[in-house]
Amino acid sequence: MTVAIEDIRAAADAIEGQVVRTPLIAAPRLSRGLGCEISLKLENLQFTGSFKDRGALNKLKSLTPAEAGRGIIAMSAGNHAQGVAYHAQRLDIPATIVMPVFAPFTKVERTRSFGARVVLEGDTIDAAAEAARRIQEEEGLAFIHPYDDPKIVAGQGTIGLEMLADRPDLEIIVVPIGGGGIISGIALAAKALKPEIRILGVEAELYPSMYQALNDLAPSAGGTTLADGIAVKTPGGLTKAIVAGLVDEILLVDEAGIEAAVQLLVEEQKLAAEGAGAAGVAAVMKEPARFAGRKVATVICGGNIDVRLLASVLTRGLIRDGRLVKLRVEIIDRPGVLAKIADCIGQTGGNIIEVHHQRMFSDVPAKQADLDIMVETRNPEHVEHIVGLLKAQGFPTRIVSSRSIDGGS
Amino acid sequence: MTVAIEDIRAAADAIEGQVVRTPLIAAPRLSRGLGCEISLKLENLQFTGSFKDRGALNKLKSLTPAEAGRGIIAMSAGNHAQGVAYHAQRLDIPATIVMPVFAPFTKVERTRSFGARVVLEGDTIDAAAEAARRIQEEEGLAFIHPYDDPKIVAGQGTIGLEMLADRPDLEIIVVPIGGGGIISGIALAAKALKPEIRILGVEAELYPSMYQALNDLAPSAGGTTLADGIAVKTPGGLTKAIVAGLVDEILLVDEAGIEAAVQLLVEEQKLAAEGAGAAGVAAVMKEPARFAGRKVATVICGGNIDVRLLASVLTRGLIRDGRLVKLRVEIIDRPGVLAKIADCIGQTGGNIIEVHHQRMFSDVPAKQADLDIMVETRNPEHVEHIVGLLKAQGFPTRIVSSRSIDGGS
Repeated sequence: MTVAIEDIRAAADAIEGQVVRTPLIAAPRLSRGLGCEISLKLENLQFTGSFKDRGALNKLKSLTPAEAGRGIIAMSAGNHAQGVAYHAQRLDIPATIVMPVFAPFTKVERTRSFGARVVLEGDTIDAAAEAARRIQEEEGLAFIHPYDDPKIVAGQGTIGLEMLADRPDLEIIVVPIGGGGIISGIALAAKALKPEIRILGVEAELYPSMYQALNDLAPSAGGTTLADGIAVKTPGGLTKAIVAGLVDEILLVDEAGIEAAVQLLVEEQKLAAEGAGAAGVAAVMKEPARFAGRKVATVICGGNIDVRLLASVLTRGLIRDGRLVKLRVEIIDRPGVLAKIADCIGQTGGNIIEVHHQRMFSDVPAKQADLDIMVETRNPEHVEHIVGLLKAQGFPTRIVSSRSIDGGS
Repeated sequence: MTVAIEDIRAAADAIEGQVVRTPLIAAPRLSRGLGCEISLKLENLQFTGSFKDRGALNKLKSLTPAEAGRGIIAMSAGNHAQGVAYHAQRLDIPATIVMPVFAPFTKVERTRSFGARVVLEGDTIDAAAEAARRIQEEEGLAFIHPYDDPKIVAGQGTIGLEMLADRPDLEIIVVPIGGGGIISGIALAAKALKPEIRILGVEAELYPSMYQALNDLAPSAGGTTLADGIAVKTPGGLTKAIVAGLVDEILLVDEAGIEAAVQLLVEEQKLAAEGAGAAGVAAVMKEPARFAGRKVATVICGGNIDVRLLASVLTRGLIRDGRLVKLRVEIIDRPGVLAKIADCIGQTGGNIIEVHHQRMFSDVPAKQADLDIMVETRNPEHVEHIVGLLKAQGFPTRIVSSRSIDGGS
């Protein structure tokens, strides 16, 4: 191995007091729901909202004074950009961050707020990476790779040291995999301290690049994932070797699972996680039998989810759970009808939050209309109860919002 | 004092291992923004999502076998209900929880899910309390008060022991006040361990009942607050005496401040807090000079915010910060106009997320229309830039969503 436990211990010394010593919290509600004893390592509490602070700081502190003086460059559309920019600013190292032109506002703004020069270039990640390499050569900068670097891996490995210091009895650690930096570090640290511990990796189904690389499958990553933090097309060479040697298995989670995990973490654990940060929880939700009764920990590796996206995930979750529903009711367009329908829904305890009349584009006769009503409900049974009542009152009603609940018709 | 540090230490022994030993986390991002060194005690990580687990468990464990056998009763529309029901179930004590008829679905469901008999009675909190007292007498149950009880206060006081064990150097602790149970317990514990520490209380401006009681002001609490967890009209007698003796000052925070604190905690600290849970942060945000440079801690006392409400707070926050805006553009109703406007907005980097044409009800001539466009923007300057561009292209435009940004006209 090119990274040893001594390197990780040295990284812990190097970054101590300059990154957050995050808690490994008991998650009793999740544990009850999932049937195992699960703990969460809250890397979303780091200053820049992800574990990237650790590796970035360890790498930056390893530069020679001459390298630090010339400055550094990194390419990232996300968390690595912020981690590098923040610690470069703290250490007075000039930082250039290349981001693809499609990088979200908030990430560009945050990176700029840490004093970095942000270069927006490239319509793809590959094009941005090429631009970064070009600027690096032109300006003689040190390149800070997001994962394929021993100093980065050692920095992320400090998470593993802390987890086992806090809970030496852990049996399984579940870690999201993007390029493989964090899982490599944690696997090295944890297996050095406790060889019998199991390390499971998690990738998004759309980006199973490490899984494919290790299983000699053709690479096929692509698409839009909520877990953009681990949407990596090519795993690192260093990290691939470490994962091959130390990681027991890689699980894949789909988009619906990742979304449900983000929702569950807010609702049951009061934590905001980005998609990649919730991937470990999604894996346990997907295959609870594999973890039943065991002492499991996963890393909430980042919390940088766009606020509008989070609001949307939460609302979609309510719809999926039958706690928010849109009903389409066919009505005769005359006075008193809305009052009757509203009364009917109100009596069941349903809370109407939006009403919209569809006249022009619905396929009902001219003197009729479609009434779209958004109702806050208790659960799918409550929805069925409301639909049944409305039908019994002579109003043809169907569910138009349903995602996993069956639509009555 | 009717509660001593020994009682709090005994409570700590009684509840150990049966409630979450919550972390006191460093909050470096908030600290940078607020100009003090702030830590957060995460009571939102308790099993039922609030600190109420502690006092409830301590009280339940103090019952005689005969009392426990007959069962207990509590009245609460919120967190106390869940804390009592959960621990009563764990200890095999029959629990009756009286909730007012307007109690939210999710809170009723959660309380039921812990095996409690839930009695929905009373159009007001007072009426529900009366119903609870009636049932208590009829059935000979033990009443579990939400705050005005030495065992409850001692249980909540364990939070103070833990905070000073984790950070003995704290200088100020900021604690939300509802009935006064949590601040009484923390003040007793903290001042016993470190007499020079300052304890500041926080109440919602709409429910300043402890502030009024201690300052001989006429009580005037009422209204709808986001901080429903601390919306208490009458402080406890026991707690009032403790607060009068040990709390240095009470600060009041308004609804906008509480809402901004909930938003800030999600966005900067990746934590979901209910309004009451964010009140301490709101106090520091309101008067940063008072805390400048000091080692401050506040208790995120609960995280039980309705998910739909949280989604709405997050979205409103974007609007307030100029990161989401609704523009009303007066257009001539003919082909190609929308394309021109959309192009104009897209070129500035604005992301259009909703378009709505207003024809019938706007006060423009028949061949014109109002176009309402919701745009994701970077900040208020970006909004002004878009408005300026559209005007320069001959489209009268105004901001119709604005909450604190100035509307261009």
